[in-house]
Parts: sequence; structure tokens; C-alpha cells
Amino acid sequence: MKRILVIHGPNLDLLGKREPKIYGKVTLKEINEHLKRIANKHKVCLAIKQSNHEGEIVDLITKARDRFKGLLINPAAYTHTSVAIRDAISATGIVTIEVHLSNIYNREEFRHKSLITPVVSGTILGFGAKSYYLGLEALLELI
Amino acid sequence: MKRILVIHGPNLDLLGKREPKIYGKVTLKEINEHLKRIANKHKVCLAIKQSNHEGEIVDLITKARDRFKGLLINPAAYTHTSVAIRDAISATGIVTIEVHLSNIYNREEFRHKSLITPVVSGTILGFGAKSYYLGLEALLELI
Amino acid sequence: MKRILVIHGPNLDLLGKREPKIYGKVTLKEINEHLKRIANKHKVCLAIKQSNHEGEIVDLITKARDRFKGLLINPAAYTHTSVAIRDAISATGIVTIEVHLSNIYNREEFRHKSLITPVVSGTILGFGAKSYYLGLEALLELI
Amino acid sequence: MKRILVIHGPNLDLLGKREPKIYGKVTLKEINEHLKRIANKHKVCLAIKQSNHEGEIVDLITKARDRFKGLLINPAAYTHTSVAIRDAISATGIVTIEVHLSNIYNREEFRHKSLITPVVSGTILGFGAKSYYLGLEALLELI
Amino acid sequence: MKRILVIHGPNLDLLGKREPKIYGKVTLKEINEHLKRIANKHKVCLAIKQSNHEGEIVDLITKARDRFKGLLINPAAYTHTSVAIRDAISATGIVTIEVHLSNIYNREEFRHKSLITPVVSGTILGFGAKSYYLGLEALLELI
Amino acid sequence: MKRILVIHGPNLDLLGKREPKIYGKVTLKEINEHLKRIANKHKVCLAIKQSNHEGEIVDLITKARDRFKGLLINPAAYTHTSVAIRDAISATGIVTIEVHLSNIYNREEFRHKSLITPVVSGTILGFGAKSYYLGLEALLELI
Amino acid sequence: MKRILVIHGPNLDLLGKREPKIYGKVTLKEINEHLKRIANKHKVCLAIKQSNHEGEIVDLITKARDRFKGLLINPAAYTHTSVAIRDAISATGIVTIEVHLSNIYNREEFRHKSLITPVVSGTILGFGAKSYYLGLEALLELI
Amino acid sequence: MKRILVIHGPNLDLLGKREPKIYGKVTLKEINEHLKRIANKHKVCLAIKQSNHEGEIVDLITKARDRFKGLLINPAAYTHTSVAIRDAISATGIVTIEVHLSNIYNREEFRHKSLITPVVSGTILGFGAKSYYLGLEALLELI
Amino acid sequence: MKRILVIHGPNLDLLGKREPKIYGKVTLKEINEHLKRIANKHKVCLAIKQSNHEGEIVDLITKARDRFKGLLINPAAYTHTSVAIRDAISATGIVTIEVHLSNIYNREEFRHKSLITPVVSGTILGFGAKSYYLGLEALLELI
Amino acid sequence: MKRILVIHGPNLDLLGKREPKIYGKVTLKEINEHLKRIANKHKVCLAIKQSNHEGEIVDLITKARDRFKGLLINPAAYTHTSVAIRDAISATGIVTIEVHLSNIYNREEFRHKSLITPVVSGTILGFGAKSYYLGLEALLELI
Amino acid sequence: MKRILVIHGPNLDLLGKREPKIYGKVTLKEINEHLKRIANKHKVCLAIKQSNHEGEIVDLITKARDRFKGLLINPAAYTHTSVAIRDAISATGIVTIEVHLSNIYNREEFRHKSLITPVVSGTILGFGAKSYYLGLEALLELI
Amino acid sequence: MKRILVIHGPNLDLLGKREPKIYGKVTLKEINEHLKRIANKHKVCLAIKQSNHEGEIVDLITKARDRFKGLLINPAAYTHTSVAIRDAISATGIVTIEVHLSNIYNREEFRHKSLITPVVSGTILGFGAKSYYLGLEALLELI
Repeated sequence: MKRILVIHGPNLDLLGKREPKIYGKVTLKEINEHLKRIANKHKVCLAIKQSNHEGEIVDLITKARDRFKGLLINPAAYTHTSVAIRDAISATGIVTIEVHLSNIYNREEFRHKSLITPVVSGTILGFGAKSYYLGLEALLELI
Repeated sequence: MKRILVIHGPNLDLLGKREPKIYGKVTLKEINEHLKRIANKHKVCLAIKQSNHEGEIVDLITKARDRFKGLLINPAAYTHTSVAIRDAISATGIVTIEVHLSNIYNREEFRHKSLITPVVSGTILGFGAKSYYLGLEALLELI
Repeated sequence: MKRILVIHGPNLDLLGKREPKIYGKVTLKEINEHLKRIANKHKVCLAIKQSNHEGEIVDLITKARDRFKGLLINPAAYTHTSVAIRDAISATGIVTIEVHLSNIYNREEFRHKSLITPVVSGTILGFGAKSYYLGLEALLELI
Repeated sequence: MKRILVIHGPNLDLLGKREPKIYGKVTLKEINEHLKRIANKHKVCLAIKQSNHEGEIVDLITKARDRFKGLLINPAAYTHTSVAIRDAISATGIVTIEVHLSNIYNREEFRHKSLITPVVSGTILGFGAKSYYLGLEALLELI
Repeated sequence: MKRILVIHGPNLDLLGKREPKIYGKVTLKEINEHLKRIANKHKVCLAIKQSNHEGEIVDLITKARDRFKGLLINPAAYTHTSVAIRDAISATGIVTIEVHLSNIYNREEFRHKSLITPVVSGTILGFGAKSYYLGLEALLELI
Repeated sequence: MKRILVIHGPNLDLLGKREPKIYGKVTLKEINEHLKRIANKHKVCLAIKQSNHEGEIVDLITKARDRFKGLLINPAAYTHTSVAIRDAISATGIVTIEVHLSNIYNREEFRHKSLITPVVSGTILGFGAKSYYLGLEALLELI
Repeated sequence: MKRILVIHGPNLDLLGKREPKIYGKVTLKEINEHLKRIANKHKVCLAIKQSNHEGEIVDLITKARDRFKGLLINPAAYTHTSVAIRDAISATGIVTIEVHLSNIYNREEFRHKSLITPVVSGTILGFGAKSYYLGLEALLELI
Repeated sequence: MKRILVIHGPNLDLLGKREPKIYGKVTLKEINEHLKRIANKHKVCLAIKQSNHEGEIVDLITKARDRFKGLLINPAAYTHTSVAIRDAISATGIVTIEVHLSNIYNREEFRHKSLITPVVSGTILGFGAKSYYLGLEALLELI
Repeated sequence: MKRILVIHGPNLDLLGKREPKIYGKVTLKEINEHLKRIANKHKVCLAIKQSNHEGEIVDLITKARDRFKGLLINPAAYTHTSVAIRDAISATGIVTIEVHLSNIYNREEFRHKSLITPVVSGTILGFGAKSYYLGLEALLELI
Repeated sequence: MKRILVIHGPNLDLLGKREPKIYGKVTLKEINEHLKRIANKHKVCLAIKQSNHEGEIVDLITKARDRFKGLLINPAAYTHTSVAIRDAISATGIVTIEVHLSNIYNREEFRHKSLITPVVSGTILGFGAKSYYLGLEALLELI
Repeated sequence: MKRILVIHGPNLDLLGKREPKIYGKVTLKEINEHLKRIANKHKVCLAIKQSNHEGEIVDLITKARDRFKGLLINPAAYTHTSVAIRDAISATGIVTIEVHLSNIYNREEFRHKSLITPVVSGTILGFGAKSYYLGLEALLELI
Repeated sequence: MKRILVIHGPNLDLLGKREPKIYGKVTLKEINEHLKRIANKHKVCLAIKQSNHEGEIVDLITKARDRFKGLLINPAAYTHTSVAIRDAISATGIVTIEVHLSNIYNREEFRHKSLITPVVSGTILGFGAKSYYLGLEALLELI
């Protein structure tokens, strides 16, 4: 049975409670349940992690090398600042999809630059929680 | 029956023949057929146009105001240069999804800036022809 | 009888329907009628065109060389991107006035640069439809 | 009877004597007389000041709050450097029109940035002395 | 018999009438005749087009794929703004020569950037009408 | 008895009347009274000036050299443009505290640069009128 | 009894030992004792943390949501690089004061940009350890 | 008898007292006496002014038009910020020499840009008080 | 016996497996063994750590103050983003050598800036694993 | 008999041996022979020099003033860095053609700027050795 | 008897013949004779060199260390590009004056940056040949 | 017997006499002797050159093609300005090591950019004379 790693970046545990105008009202728990239902339907196994630590996310990715077929990641704030996560994705060679809840290109100037996009297979942004679901479906087709 | 407008920007008629390393081997005709199959399944009607003319694309969008529920657009080269298409999307108020075959953010520097992204609901990029199919499914849920 | 060319750039046919907070509620038809009343009062003849096509606007200007005494233009989105329209204005040598409905200098950063202003006699911006009327009166005095 | 304040910025007292290729041959006195004739025709009262002092211009604007209905200003050199005049205009809330004799956007690079434009109702530039007259007429309609 | 496509970009129909200090006194018709004489001498067939429309130029290039052996283009104003024409040249894979009448690198700053040069075989600029003739001779040797 | 100079920069006489969303509702008179109460409690003497004139503020500072122990200044608009006030503070060598009512770093881009901060002992910003009171208390401890 | 969270960013445990010319001689322990004395006087309870880990600081802030009334933070090196801490502060909605020991605006260029300032209530910088004490007093008045 | 105007910009009254490492120990009075001795020797008459006010310096220059043959100016802090003084020098057409005590090009970045240099006949910098004396001698030869 | 700390930054545990074209085929374990052989020969003791966590690296450095004579560090991805590690190196005052396997100056633009280089004694880059060995030998001579 | 100077800039003596992918396989000797054949045909005399020394190239050009009718130059690496060669070309007033073997505008960023182009009559680039031959023919027509 | 070295940079041997609008009509020989007359009057000995070679100028300066008391240099084109000459001046420690015939700050943008000014005692520019004479007199006073 | 070329760039003949705070007290002669001792130990032959001339350094490198196995170069000031030396290194294809005495990345901004680093095998900087010795040892292992 294929295994897929899902990583939620910093502050995403606050989802639903935090600035709902930007991020919507759905909680991280609800997103995870929806993702699992999609996974079940396709008979794949999901491992889901949320972390506020750049280093921990790098750990997760580098250890995923031989254990996962694909990575679905919302790097959140680390999108714009983490060369380490970028390097980890390049190094593992796992098929990776980047998702964002909001349209990062119509927010503050410093969010218009993603260090992650150039090293992923594809990016989906602006659809709220649906970005995750589309991303998982796309990932399932790719692997 | 809901109607959706699909616009393919400049040079996309060459798809399949043009630089397959970047754009893949599928032809525009094949993409359009796949899009129609998805549309049929969801009982919506698609109007599909390809144009190399910025002004023609603006015409199509401004005239779509009352006749279409949603717009799926791959602005191709005009992504990076057309304020006119951006303004047309803002002005019509139609729900719009932007798609790109390639990952524009790991190509030449001048392709890293999309004038269109800030005015659309969501963007999907890097999945080849699948960007269109994901985009249409996302659009169908939004409208 | 003197002849004057009026060119409305892309998306201006949506005027009145489009983002009224930025552009006001008056329609293009009402503006055109008001412009004609001014022209009648001054015994000049107006030719009025709206186009979403950069090339068409260039065509209009290059053909206006010997047939019109003055040009009143709202280049809209092409203000910021069209070297071709700029070159056409320089090449024809017709007295030209640039007008804008909105104050382009307090909107998005990319609208703060006009490629057109350096080659026109004068620019009027921020007065809504009145920008056109002031522009026409100024043009009538110049020619 | 409505009162309007007209402010001429630095060096404008030299008008007519100074670089006529850029600024024309009309003197400030002639401009003021023409402005008064327009005002008389519309039954409004003008107060006209010229000052080379940024602080004095700020004083004039801040004191104008309750005494004037509108402000017609040519900020001249302070256009490009004065945050203080900009703040004064924002703070008073008087309807303000900015005018320039020359086309500041085809002169030196440092003149292509106006700190004043983003806080005024409208801007008129490049018509020589006529910029003032158009500006006053526009102001009279707005108030 | 080999066929070559010659494209003249926007405003070049005004040649000879337009700003002769920059562009010289020769007309487009004279250039075309001279080009044809060169072509005759080399027994090749020329198709010559002038267009002010970016989209039309893209159409011409994309349709040239199987019908022409080489392309001689003066992109004029679109040199600096058209990603679409650049993409069309890349996509067709026809041997392409870019020519300019004037020395674009000693004119305004915004003309110092050519989006076209990086995708052509060679560029010739600054020789007036002779840029075309040298370009055609170079093209004839390359194909 | 120690003497302290307080300088309010341009437009601060409008405080309470001017854009209360940004600057709060308290008037300059109320701030001055509060500052005097703090001064009385600490047995120091305050001299308080408001000026819209950059030159006058420079005069005040350069003359303060031997007569004041400390300077509390809100340079307002001159924060971003006045090298002269910066030089005056450096030259006098008086202990200086810079205060701002609003958080200048989340307003317009041009307000993100303070020419004054690099030459003062400390800066306090964003607390409304309280910025002054904290600043005075800090100044009293430093001198 | 109100609770306040104090966070000391990276390297601040070296305070007193580290580059005393820039940061002063007082130790973190002494600062913490002084802060507690102020807290006791005002009958509030302080929780004080020092961490070199960006992720840990994000954890602390996101968990503080319901347990603390205010946050006093010296983000130190993360001031200039952490979008994650910025997002955590925005998301929690706790009243936050940012303090710096040194005047970051007269040090290296890369320290002149604070990602944190735009999302806090107020900032105090340059007073050495006193920045903390002023910051705590300001925070106590705000909550 | 020829008349020459000497203008000392802001903060120069502090000379000798202010930051002697940068500006030297000589006072403004001593410089003025030395300048007068040179003037006497050459039988010209000097008018010497020091002002901290940008507007006052503009007044002095604009009024100097018909009364002085030459201008020797140390614009000090206004060197880097005053378009108004620059315009005044251009407008008067008096032969002007710019002097600086210090080498402004090896100090802070913002002092590396002189708005004044492009409109003067010549500039002398870095020689301390001697910059003035050389400047006066150069001016005497030019007029 | 002297003690030296060796720190391997993020993703270096993947060495040998990761992008061998850029980083070579040698594993981290082999590098560490080679480093230990050099250390043994010189009778010094090595402590070697690899971490993906910026905060952990800061912890290691700040705690190294009194326990190690020198630091050999490959900051990897944190080279370009970590002010915290830079500050930790400055604060500890340990002799530090920075090494890189690859030539960071001929890779992506964002890798051309090292925040670490300005605070170390020396830097060695581009020699693959040999960068470490040269670095250790250099460090042994310096301490 | 007319005389023409040909200058080959730095490293061009390595032609044919050096990076053939970029510069082609033809040697400098072969190019020179071809150039001489063209010259013979047109009855002009060529002087050909290769130099790696910027100063020597300046010497050659400044001494060419009265002895040569035209200059054909490939400034190679000095294209991007030599103001001295640019000034020499301007000063001599000889008709000058600049040629480049490769298309410098699709190589490294620092090669996209030619200091020489703005002062020459025309530029030909990207045709390999043929750039020289076209350049010589163009030069022969111009003189 | 004191010895002074005078260095004329590249292309200055063309003086009087070259672009007289920018550089005046006086020849280098005349300047040198005038400089010698000044030197004779002050009983100092001049060594005068002109060179188009950056390396030769560096040679001259590095060898001047023990043999000359002062250096008067017009670096001409190397002003803007030569770090080597800058380093040579710093390294020799000779008192150095930089002169320019023209006002380099109102010419092309790339001439607005002098690499030499930050390491000299003083700079004199814009006075034509007189810049040299003033420079020599200033140098004579300094040594 | 293998031969290695050592090139010392401009001003390095002043070593030991020049700014010892930056470059140390060791002379170039001492460095050369040390380098020869290392070479003797490894049975290789060194040719050592110092030159202030960019062109001479290019000559040395281009002629080294067939005669040397490796190049050890300290390009000094030419590090930041010489495309010609960069091209010479690329063209020869000799294994090259770049060394710097000082840490160029904590000096003036213009020294933070090396044109040479991207084309060498490795770079060693900041170790004073030891940079050369480490560089030679590294070079000996590579060839």
C-alpha cells in the first residue's frame, strides 16, 4: 500500500481560529479528515504532521526518502524564508506538491516569493482547504 | 445549463509540437476533448477559444460577463505582460481560475511575475495538461 | 471643420458597470455624448473609437496623421505596457492629450509608470469622466 | 461666497524669467490675474500665495482647514521631496487639485515621483499656465 | 525554391515620414524592393508583412512553421514588451534574424532590453535600412 | 533645575482633529499638559515647541546646545526627509529621544525609513500619545 | 491575576558576556529580576522564556492565545528573518510589544528591516535593558 | 565693484564646535574673515549668509539674480535633499560654485548623491575650510 | 588536550545520496572519519554534530563558549538565511572556519550571499569533502 | 587607398581552441585571412591587431585618428567593463562597427550590458565568425 | 626640493582635439606648461605622465611611495572602473588630489560613481583645465 | 616534473608595507619562498609572477594553456572588475584556485562580488598568507 506524507507548516494548527478572512473557517482537523477520506478511496495511506519548526520539517522530509512515495506540503511562513526545506525537497527526490490556502500573490510583497515552488512538481494556491484536496488528487495521479 | 468559458493564450495551438521538454506531448485538441468529457460528466457546457491576440482575449472576457458562470484561462505569454487582461478579469467579476502547464517559477526570471494571479480565485501550475483538468474541477466546485 | 480623434482604451466599454468605486457610475455612452456636445459648441468634429486591441489603437493613430488635428486618448491598461502606442503618438506628431478617470498614482505600484505621458502635450487624471471633458477643452485650445 | 486658496511653490516667482523653454513666458502675475478673472466669473473669492518655504506652505494649508473650500496647488520642487506638505493636505481634508506647468514625467528621473499626487483629487500637468486655469475650473465643479 | 518570411513590426509603415533623425528617410516600400532584389539574386522567395498587432505577428510566426525556411524580423516596439513573440520564435524553431534600424542601446532606458535577442540566431542594429539587407544576407547563408 | 526641550514636528498642531484612526483623539494641548505634569513630578523644566518649518527645528536644536540637558522630538514628516535635523542632533550632542504616535513601519513604504533613528539614543513608536510619556520618562533616566 | 508572557529570542542568554559595547553589561537574569519586580508592583504574573529556536517561539506564542493577556518580545536575530513569528503574533491577537536592546537602525543594513514591527502595538529600541522595562510598563497600561 | 554672494547651509554656524573629526576646528567666523581678505585682495564685495532654512536659501538665490555676479554655496545637509535649491540655481543663471568641507563620498551612503552638483559650474570637496578659499578663487576667475 | 567542535548544517546527513553532481559521492560518515584521523594526528579532540535545526545549531555554538577552542562549520542552507547563527558566532568569540562543499557562487543567485562569511576567520569553498580537511588544518594552525 | 583598423579584444587569440560550443571552431588566423580577402576585393587595406590589454587597445584607437577611415572592433570581455575604450571611440570620431561572435544577450547577466554599443554606428552579434565579415562589409559601405 | 607626481589618465592626450564641448579647447601640453609654471613659482619639481594603461598607472603610483610628496591625478575613464588604482592610492599613503575637467555628475549615469574619491584628500571637478591648477595649489598647501 | 603557475595581482608587491591591519606584515618575497618550499617538498616546479596589468595577467594565463598543470591566483583588485581574466581562466581550462589574504566579504560593498569565483575549482579567503599555502596544497591534490 502506497504511503504519502502530508506536512502542515507553522501556525496552521490555529486554522479556523486565525484570521478567517484570509484563511477560511475550516479547522486543520477537518482538513485532515477530508484528506484521509480521499486517501481511503484511493487505497493509499497518509501520514500527517504539523510543525512550527523549520528543522523538524527538514527532518521529516529527509527521513521520508525511502518510506513515502509522495509529499503534500503547505510550507506556510517557511515558503518565503526556508532554503533548508527547499534543499530537503531537492535532496529526497520524492514527488512533491506545494499547496497554499490563500492567494499568496495578492498579499504582502514579501509573500510573493516562494523558495519552494521552483523545486516541486506543481503548485496549487488560493482555493482555501480545497487546495489540499486538489493537491492530493494531483499527487495520487503523479505517483 | 451552466456555461463555462475556457481561454487558451498565445502559442498554445502549437502544443505537442512545441518544446515538448517544457510543455509535454499532449496536443491542444486532446486537452480540449478531455475538458469536454469532464464538463459532460458535470452537465455543464464549455466554450473553448484559443487566441494569440491580447485584445481578442480582452474582448472574449468582457463579453463573457452575462453569458458565462466561470472562466478557466491559461494566459501563457500574456501572464507576464498584460494589464489589459488583468483589468478585464477584475471588471467582469466572473469566477476565474488561472492554469499553467509548466512551473513558471523555475524558468526565466521574467516569467516569475504573474500580473493575473492577484485577481483570480486560484492558480494551478506545473502539472502539464493536468493543470487544466484540476482547474476545471476546482472551478466547477466554486460556481 | 477641424476633426479630433478620441480613443478609449481596453475595458472602457464596461464603464459604469465595472468597479464603480474606482471608475464612477457614468457609462462610456454618456461620456461620448457629453464630449460631442462640447465639440458641437466649438464647431469641431469628433471621431470616437473604443478598442481592446493595442494594434488597432496603433492603426488608428498612424492613420490619423493627415486626417485629424488632435488626439484625446485614455490608454487605460496600455498606459503601462505599450511602447507601440507611445511610438505611434511620437511618429504621428498630432497634438495629444492623455486622460485617466482614476488617480493612477494611488493605485497598484505597476500603474505608477506611464509610458505615454512623456510623449503627450499634457495629462489630466483623477477627475472621473470630467478628465475627458477638461482634456477636450484643453485640446481645443492647443490646436 | 466660497473661498479658494491658491499656493504657488518655490521659484515660481521667477516665472517668465526662468528657463522659458521649460516653463513658458507668462509671468506669475499674469497667471494670478487670469485666475482671478475665472474666479470672478464664478463668484468665488481667491487667496493667492507664493512661498519658497516648505514650512510656510504647511502653515498655509493647516490654517486653511475651516476657511477655504478648496486648494489649488503647484508644489513645484516640493512635489518630489515634501512628506510634510502631503501630510498637511491629507490632514486638512480640503478638496485639492495639483497642477504643474511642465510635463514632469519627461524631465529628470527624480521628477518622475510625486509625493503629492496620491493625496489629491486630481492632477493636471504639461499645459503651461493653462494647467492652472483647467485646475481651477475643475476645482470649482468639485466643491 | 526556398521561402523566407519578413516581418515589419508596429509603426514601420510610417518609415521615411516618421522622426527621420532616428529612423532615416528611406520608406518601407523602398526597403521591401531592395530586399526583393537581394532575394531574386539568391533565387529565394520573400513573403513580406507589416503589422501593428502583436497577436497578428504571433499568428504569422506560428503559421510559418512548415512553410518558411527563415524569418527576418524587426520587432520594433514589441522588442521590449512581447513575451508572446519571443515564445512564438522559440516554438517555431525557424532560423531567425532580428534587425533594428536605430541603435536601441543609445536611446531611452526602456529600449535597452530586448526580449527577442536571446532567442534569435543573430542581431544587427544601428545601420538604418542597411540592417535589413545585412540581415537578409546573413539569413541566406545560415539556411 | 534641569531643562528639557520638547519639539513637535509638522502638522502635529492638528492632532485630535487629523485622521484620528491613525493618530488618535488626544490633542497636542492635552499631550503637553500631561508632559508638564510628568516634568513637575520629576522637578525638571520643559520648553515645548511645535513647528512646521524644518529650518526652525534646526534653529531650535542648534541653539539648545548649552541650554538644555535633553531633547524629546517627534519629527513627524521630517523623519523621512530631513538630513538637516539629523545633522543638528549629531552636532549638538544633546541626549535625544525620538517618538512617533503611529507605527510608521506599517504605513506607506516611504515612511519605513527614518533618517533620525540612527543618531538618537532610543526610539519609541506606536503607542499614540503614550509614546511621548514613555519617551520623557526614558529621557529623565538617561540625563 | 493577569498573566504576561516574556520571550527572549536567540543568543540573549549570552547577555552581559556578549559584545558589551553593543548590548551592555547587564545579564538576562538581572533583566528578568527587574521585570518581575515591576510585575509584582502591578500585581501581574510573568512567564519568562528564552529560546534559540524559531519554532519553539512560534509554539510559545500560538499556545499563549488563551492563557496570556499580553506578550513582551525581543525577537533578536529572528526580527529580520522570521515570517513564522510574525504570523504567530498576527494569529494570536494578543497585545504585543517589541523591544530591542540596541538601536538596530544604526547597525548593519540587514538589521534595518523588522518583519515583526508591522504586527505589534508598539516598539521600543535603543535603551539597553531599559527597553524591556519601558516595554513592560507600556504593556501593562495597554491591557 | 563686483558683488558675490556666499551662502552657508544648515548647521554650519556650529562649525568648530561640531564633530571636529569630520569638519575641522576652524569656526565659521574665521572662514568668513579669510574669505573677505581674499575678496578685498581682488576688489570684490562679499555678502555672506548662513541659514538653516531651505526656503530662506531659495529666497536669497532667487533675489540674487540681478544683484550678484557669482554664488559660492555650501549647501550642507540640503545638498542631498533640496530640489528647490537646485531649481533656484538653475533659474537664476548666476555662476555658482559648490563647496564641501568634508569628502561627502566617503561618508554615509545617503550623502553620496548631490542634487546640486549637476547644476553648478564646478565643485570642490574634502579640503576643509580650504574648499571655500579655492572655491572663491575659482569663482573670481570665472566671472 | 584541545577540543574542536564540528557542525554540519541541514541536509548534510544525506551526503553521498543527495544530488551527487553538486555535492560529490562521499558520505558524511566518511568525512567525519577522515576529520578524526586528521585530529588524531594533531592530538586534538573533535566533537561532531549534524543538525537540521537552526535553533539547535545556535544552542551548540552558544554552549561551546568555554568548552571548545575552535569551530569548523558548514552552515549549508542556513548560510544564506540565518542571522541567529551569525550572531551566535560573533557572541562566542571562538575562532571559526566556514566551509562549503560546492562553489556557492556559481549556483542560484540566492546562494551568492553568505551571512556567515563576514564573522568568520576564513572561508574555504568548492573543494568537495576536501573543503572540510583544509578547513580543519587551517583551524589547527590558528588556535 | 583607404585603410581600416581591425581590433580583436582579449582572449580572442584562443579562438577555435576555446569553448567551441560558445565561440565556434574557426581560428583567429582563418578569420583574419577571410577579412583580408574581403578587403582585397574592395581595394582597401586592413591593419589587424589582437590585444589582451585595455590600455593598448586605447592606444591603438587614439593613434588611429588620422590614419584610418574606419574601425571594426570585437571588444570581447572589455565590452562590459571598459569606459576607457568607449571614450577612445567617442574621441577619435572614426566610424566604428562593434561585432560579437556569440549572442551576448543570452549568456550571463553581466554580459547583457555593452558600454561600447551606445557610441558605435552599428552592432552585429551572434553569427560566429560571420559577424566579422558582415561587419566589414557594412563598414565598407559606411565610409 | 619637493617632488610631485601628476598623472593624466586614458585619452587625455587627445585633449583639445576631443569633444571640445565637454572637455574644452586647451591641449594637454598647455596644461602641463601651466602646471610647471605654478610648480616653479612654488619651487617644487613636477613629474608628469599620461597613460592609457590602468596597470601602468598602478605601477607609477606604487613606485611613487618614497619618491614623491604628493599626487595630482585625473583618472579619467578609470575613475569609474578601477579598483586597482584605488587600492594603489590607499596603499602608498601619498597625499592625493583627484581632478576632473568636466562635471562628471551631470553626464551619463555610469560616470556618477567615482571609485577614487573615497580615498583621496580632496576632489575638484567641472572647471576645465583650471581644475588641475586649483588642484595643484591645494596639493602644495597640504604637503 | 609538473609545473604550476602562481599569479599575484595588482598592488601585491606592496605587501607587508601596505595597510598591515588588512593584509598582514608578511612580504610577497616571504610568501613566495614559503610557496617554493611547499613545491619542493611535493616535487613540483613553480613559476611566480606579480603584475599590476590586467592584460599581462590575461597574457600569462592564455599562454599557460599547454605549459602548466595548475594555476594559483590572487586576482586582488581585478577580482571585482575583470571579465577578461575570468574569460582567460575559462578558456584555458587549467585547474585554478583563487585565494585572498583578507576576508573580502566583510570589507566595502564593491568587494563582495567576485567575477572570478564562478569559474574556479575552489576559493580560499581570509587566512592571510596562509590562504596561499592552503591553496597550493589543495591545487597539488587536484592535479
